Amino acid sequence: MTAVAPARRIDPRVVRTRAAVLAATREVLTESGFPALCIDGVAKRSGVARTTIYRHWPSAAALAHEAFRDLAEPAPDIDTGSIRDDLLAHLRWLRTALEDSEWGRLLPHVVAASHHDPELAELHRAFGAERRRPAVAAVDRAIGRGELPAGLDSDALVDRLAGPLFYRCLVRLRPTTDADLESLVDGALNGPAAR
Amino acid sequence: MTAVAPARRIDPRVVRTRAAVLAATREVLTESGFPALCIDGVAKRSGVARTTIYRHWPSAAALAHEAFRDLAEPAPDIDTGSIRDDLLAHLRWLRTALEDSEWGRLLPHVVAASHHDPELAELHRAFGAERRRPAVAAVDRAIGRGELPAGLDSDALVDRLAGPLFYRCLVRLRPTTDADLESLVDGALNGPAAR
Repeated sequence: MTAVAPARRIDPRVVRTRAAVLAATREVLTESGFPALCIDGVAKRSGVARTTIYRHWPSAAALAHEAFRDLAEPAPDIDTGSIRDDLLAHLRWLRTALEDSEWGRLLPHVVAASHHDPELAELHRAFGAERRRPAVAAVDRAIGRGELPAGLDSDALVDRLAGPLFYRCLVRLRPTTDADLESLVDGALNGPAAR
Repeated sequence: MTAVAPARRIDPRVVRTRAAVLAATREVLTESGFPALCIDGVAKRSGVARTTIYRHWPSAAALAHEAFRDLAEPAPDIDTGSIRDDLLAHLRWLRTALEDSEWGRLLPHVVAASHHDPELAELHRAFGAERRRPAVAAVDRAIGRGELPAGLDSDALVDRLAGPLFYRCLVRLRPTTDADLESLVDGALNGPAAR
């Protein structure tokens, strides 16, 4: 076994403290939403002193924003050569993120808080744009190789796929099967006559 | 002028008190979410005594559920004879509800709280199903008159239209123009070659 040298030496106690504070923050946010977050509550839950927390984060908002940024797992780049397969793989990944991840559990609270917190809204928009990028790129590649018509709005096509999945998971509160995802992709690619 | 006789005589003070309590409840829910709601806070904000509130609602949850039910404005029945026009009218109505109504402001909090509150989740599902009904009926009528193919899944088609609109408004936090709605309907009806 070879030990991997870290790029910079960071005190492991700082790493542990930071992780404990961010985990406690995510717990409060997921259970009770952004308005419920205060440094005192996070100090109590994480066992880290208030003064230590204030040294790293000047406010509860700064802490909330970092806890959210910390969940920003990038979307995978998928290139199978078939737009149907690419889009199905993206939707399966998004379904797992929505139904079974900390980000998915935090998302409704982020949406609710974004109305009062422009900085959070901007973080959320930037994170969303980054996660959409690989799916939009897959559509653009399919247009490039003639699999989809030239002049197609790739951003709008991704909306037509991601939208119903967010809607089912968040608004309709219904589970989504593989067959639902196939019907969604075939409908978006071929119109209502498809199935 | 003719006075309209109410179906039952209800003490107007009870009506006023009820309205004040529900308005204060909606304010708390919209600002801070369901976990922040408590009877004491509503009493302070509405100027109605705690004991009076408890007489009508046994718990903060009962109050929250009624405040949400109270916003359940039914969706309009629209039948122009053209499925494109019917769907555009439904989407314009939904856009206004999402961007500019108390229900739209409350929705992200409802979604967040539904994970911990099965009764609220059920209310939310039932309300959503009721609001989808006229759009699904419009698609079924279009199938009946041969404007859309027989065997089309009308529920899935409504998902493909409502989904992207909820997604734009709630997740992408972007305004939606009439042209966006037209592109959405044409894409869902005709597939990606449409525009």
